[in-house]
Amino acid sequence: MQIIHTVQALRVSLGHAEDTAFVPTMGNLHDGHIALVRQAARTGSPVVASIFVNPLQFGQGEDFERYPRTLTTDADKLAAAGCDILFAPDVAEMYPEPQAFQVLPPLADDLCGAFRPGHFAGVCTVVLKLFEMVRPRYAVFGKKDYQQLFLLKGMVRQFNLPIKILAGETQRAADGLALSSRNGYLSATERQEAPRLQHELRAIASAIAAGEHHFSVLEAAAAAHLAEAGWKIDYVSVRSQATLRPPAAGEGKLVVLGAAWLNRTRLIDNLEIDRGAF
Amino acid sequence: MQIIHTVQALRVSLGHAEDTAFVPTMGNLHDGHIALVRQAARTGSPVVASIFVNPLQFGQGEDFERYPRTLTTDADKLAAAGCDILFAPDVAEMYPEPQAFQVLPPLADDLCGAFRPGHFAGVCTVVLKLFEMVRPRYAVFGKKDYQQLFLLKGMVRQFNLPIKILAGETQRAADGLALSSRNGYLSATERQEAPRLQHELRAIASAIAAGEHHFSVLEAAAAAHLAEAGWKIDYVSVRSQATLRPPAAGEGKLVVLGAAWLNRTRLIDNLEIDRGAF
Repeated sequence: MQIIHTVQALRVSLGHAEDTAFVPTMGNLHDGHIALVRQAARTGSPVVASIFVNPLQFGQGEDFERYPRTLTTDADKLAAAGCDILFAPDVAEMYPEPQAFQVLPPLADDLCGAFRPGHFAGVCTVVLKLFEMVRPRYAVFGKKDYQQLFLLKGMVRQFNLPIKILAGETQRAADGLALSSRNGYLSATERQEAPRLQHELRAIASAIAAGEHHFSVLEAAAAAHLAEAGWKIDYVSVRSQATLRPPAAGEGKLVVLGAAWLNRTRLIDNLEIDRGAF
Repeated sequence: MQIIHTVQALRVSLGHAEDTAFVPTMGNLHDGHIALVRQAARTGSPVVASIFVNPLQFGQGEDFERYPRTLTTDADKLAAAGCDILFAPDVAEMYPEPQAFQVLPPLADDLCGAFRPGHFAGVCTVVLKLFEMVRPRYAVFGKKDYQQLFLLKGMVRQFNLPIKILAGETQRAADGLALSSRNGYLSATERQEAPRLQHELRAIASAIAAGEHHFSVLEAAAAAHLAEAGWKIDYVSVRSQATLRPPAAGEGKLVVLGAAWLNRTRLIDNLEIDRGAF
């Protein structure tokens, strides 16, 4: 596996290759990322992964500084998973001048965006830049960051990027906790508590599957259970898979999303629900 | 010359060609556009031109509806100038759904942007879309739309698009009037008056070349002369070529830009000034 740090070297290495499969990450890789790399490899295209902790998508007071940087072990994992090129630029390489041009996505003030101002503009902007550096045919993103995946699909479609976005299923620990680099922030006690978010989303999904359609009641109940267990809730919300807005009456393909804090650690998760159109 | 109306047919026709030279236009072509096409042809790459009157860059009450559509004569002119592919999508092809993702450029509220809210976001967004459809190696834009050229160069650089922007010199009538599709709106009397904008910018350039550095005095004098002659001024402003902001003390490469109305027609023009660094 080649490890490349500059845009210029990346372009030389890729040449006119137009058939790569790309997995952008922020590093500190876990089995969720590795599953995305394996999914990329299954396209049959050469696999490019990137590791870049993007300051543009972190707000004031968020965890940009303490976000774990583990390039050496990450590189070993990527090589073992079949990655061909690792692109790991530093901040000066990605932003040689202040980034004045930004992508302004819709839904930027909704769900996670409501609690992380500027986050999705930062995500879309850096991903557009990475897409232009790599110019892949495929790009793989995990469903764990559901709103991000939704927005990046929209960006590709609305900016007419000739890239196919592949969605990777969320990888989970045995107790249901979605794998996340931020799980590393959790104390042993918090780690034991953490699966409750997923359990509450699952309870909402079951109730909807059983015919409940008062979503706001389900959302409020889940939030109350989490709060009782000591969580601070950002949101628990049932949405349309098609629009990520509150579902229209009778819409079948739903997703329930949640974001909540265990002390200083913010966790997110989601679950797709297909109750059929009716 | 091929004439293509859909993105899909365009991608098929271009195949994996990565070496085209692209000239985006809104049609109603004059010798200024044709000079850009000839400049594109001089790169040695196949030339793609587009004609699309982009609703996203017109504000409420602007001339989107009356902007002249002259596809047949435009196509003849392009073929004669050496264009290989004309891409002429309709609005539904460019915007099959409401354009929720936009490019947010800097300087969007300055100069022309101050008088045309949303204009440069609309320009950058449609040009990014066109760039992704065509994926050219070169793209040619005229200096007549100086702020547009400046912003598109910035967009390419900051989004890492592997495209080289070529700047075309402004083409002028014998009396100095910059060629523009909007000149067609002018009555015979207005057409006679129209070169005054360029003459006033030239007077500012001469004064600066002669050592004058009280730019605001020059700007105010030019605006006063135009107002006396019946123009409504949007702005007359001396700027830095490097930043398009007000120049730093001693900055050598300047540009003077003006925008003003003759009755219902808005004209813009500009002139680069190199007084040397000092």
